[in-house]
Amino acid sequence: MAKAGSGKTDQNAANKIERMAGDIYKKSLSGQKPQLKMPIRSLGNVKYEKKSGYLALSNQYKTRTLTYNTVKGFAQTLKMMSASKELIETNDHASKREMYYISKNWGPARFDEQPESDTVMDDIEAMMCVNREQLRFLPEEKGGEVAGQLVVVDRDRDTGKTLKIDCTGFGSGAYSIPSSVEHLDFQTKAKFILCIETAGMFQRLVAHNYWKKANCILISMGGVPTRATRRFVRRLADRIKIPVYTFVDGDPYGIANIYRTLKVGSGNAAHINEFFCVPTATFMGITPQDINEYKLPTHPLKDVDIKRAKDAIKNDPFFQYHKPWLQAIEQMIKSGVRAEQQALAKHGLNYVMDEYLPRKLKHADKFLP
Amino acid sequence: MAKAGSGKTDQNAANKIERMAGDIYKKSLSGQKPQLKMPIRSLGNVKYEKKSGYLALSNQYKTRTLTYNTVKGFAQTLKMMSASKELIETNDHASKREMYYISKNWGPARFDEQPESDTVMDDIEAMMCVNREQLRFLPEEKGGEVAGQLVVVDRDRDTGKTLKIDCTGFGSGAYSIPSSVEHLDFQTKAKFILCIETAGMFQRLVAHNYWKKANCILISMGGVPTRATRRFVRRLADRIKIPVYTFVDGDPYGIANIYRTLKVGSGNAAHINEFFCVPTATFMGITPQDINEYKLPTHPLKDVDIKRAKDAIKNDPFFQYHKPWLQAIEQMIKSGVRAEQQALAKHGLNYVMDEYLPRKLKHADKFLP
Repeated sequence: MAKAGSGKTDQNAANKIERMAGDIYKKSLSGQKPQLKMPIRSLGNVKYEKKSGYLALSNQYKTRTLTYNTVKGFAQTLKMMSASKELIETNDHASKREMYYISKNWGPARFDEQPESDTVMDDIEAMMCVNREQLRFLPEEKGGEVAGQLVVVDRDRDTGKTLKIDCTGFGSGAYSIPSSVEHLDFQTKAKFILCIETAGMFQRLVAHNYWKKANCILISMGGVPTRATRRFVRRLADRIKIPVYTFVDGDPYGIANIYRTLKVGSGNAAHINEFFCVPTATFMGITPQDINEYKLPTHPLKDVDIKRAKDAIKNDPFFQYHKPWLQAIEQMIKSGVRAEQQALAKHGLNYVMDEYLPRKLKHADKFLP
Repeated sequence: MAKAGSGKTDQNAANKIERMAGDIYKKSLSGQKPQLKMPIRSLGNVKYEKKSGYLALSNQYKTRTLTYNTVKGFAQTLKMMSASKELIETNDHASKREMYYISKNWGPARFDEQPESDTVMDDIEAMMCVNREQLRFLPEEKGGEVAGQLVVVDRDRDTGKTLKIDCTGFGSGAYSIPSSVEHLDFQTKAKFILCIETAGMFQRLVAHNYWKKANCILISMGGVPTRATRRFVRRLADRIKIPVYTFVDGDPYGIANIYRTLKVGSGNAAHINEFFCVPTATFMGITPQDINEYKLPTHPLKDVDIKRAKDAIKNDPFFQYHKPWLQAIEQMIKSGVRAEQQALAKHGLNYVMDEYLPRKLKHADKFLP
């Protein structure tokens, strides 16, 4: 019977596990000490290249050799790889929390606290160069909703029947993105994807069928997008090749956390940015320029905002690469104020749909990169 | 043209606003000082009665008389009531944040900070005895997902056409509950509603089509349920009259925060519990009894857990009313441990569906009240 799940990536992950396990087995038989080699996951081992378009790992590795002292961690890694293979074979998945509980049956290899099992999971992910979802390990958190001109193609687990989920048909509601999106396919004639920071703004655009007028796909991020949301947008953008616009608050958090994470990934999880970033995304959030042009109500920058903005200029390879960003962030620090996307309500609740978005979209080529 | 939105409740709220405004107008004309009378919103003004089934306001009121000192607050209240009426008439809504920004055009009556406008909103809600969503003010936060044997009936805003949203058709995804659910209707032949604490557990039950086997509706609360989720479950339970079971962690947070809030509402928002509680809900979460019976892995209770449990026994009228709850909570304090719903994974990932839930559901009459 046909099963849900993307056969190719599944086979890829399962093969990698077998190959690694086979190497360890052979080394053991030949009397050598088996080793696991994995990239170092830290900010110091990260680079940004325009070509790849995301914060990527550099080439520092650590090697874990099986010795008397490392035997527990080594065993835990192998047990977890084995669990992953079983999950793939049974077309199941396990949350991070569930994996921790499953280990309670591993005798002396059991984890005492979840952070330990999470670390081993991250290591395996980095070592195998696949994302955790392909290993069938799911994050605990969800989030991310979709409305508008998109059909999501899923499959019924029991019958194998194709399910076409039409995101124009949910009224004031929306499609909620599942924890893992590896198996989904997409159909659309939309002109662009609009990723929105706040649930409030998303709800406004949905309630007024904005997607109909603008022929687009609306995605609610609800703050910094979850892994599932980032991966969803990424797979969608890869598949249908239309622009991704990011509509966030005009403040250092919206820029340096939400937008940056969606576009190039995050610094301390660089081993997975390859799968989770959306390099084609551009910024249509509130800019320091907009604050003047649209006479928006502002709030003064707090210390934490200023610190975040200065950090972006000083330490973030993405912003450093893009002059227009350095200028915009410096302009914001100098002005001393920030403005939220909902501040447009000052001009009337629907100003955002009737004026702001259409006017901005006419000059999409000028969006900050 | 037909518009989405529940005509009756809309008219009800609009009429109330007109009546109140009319009274104030008449009093002003006759040279009297106009007054606004509203219930005191505090824990000290709350009672629990089995019959109504929720934490309700007692009968202490405060009166706001128009004087030189109260003129700003008075004007703000009237401006916001007027905004509500306009939202109803134009079939629109405003988030709490948007209302704050709209006030920037109210001259000297504008709000300086959002907490001020939120307080006025709460006051109006309490004064009018309708929930804020009926006044067309929406909370910022969303959350709450649905999968399984339910058709949600919504309406297209532009065409007035009925939209039937079949929650069996979302595959690994789900239906995301909108910020306001006042206008929704429901169709179902399900036998019960299962409200689930964690996104991880929800995802497991969805991925395995558990709703098909059990003929039920699955609802993900993602921690303490949002207003929209609570109102959704309440309206659903009122409409279709099937049992509501709450599947949460076996810890004081799951019991005294998540379950209690869903069933009887919260202490400091008693003026709206009438609309947001689900009095028919019962508890099928992990009990102290389950921890022994299913030999679940546990965690020691932290100080904050013990404090929460003792508070429930000492100060919470709901738990005080129900002897079995007092016993269960005391048993938990004595045992010194808690267990999570995902701890069932120790017995295998699908033990929860294959064993635990079916076994518990056979004795639904014995669930804690």
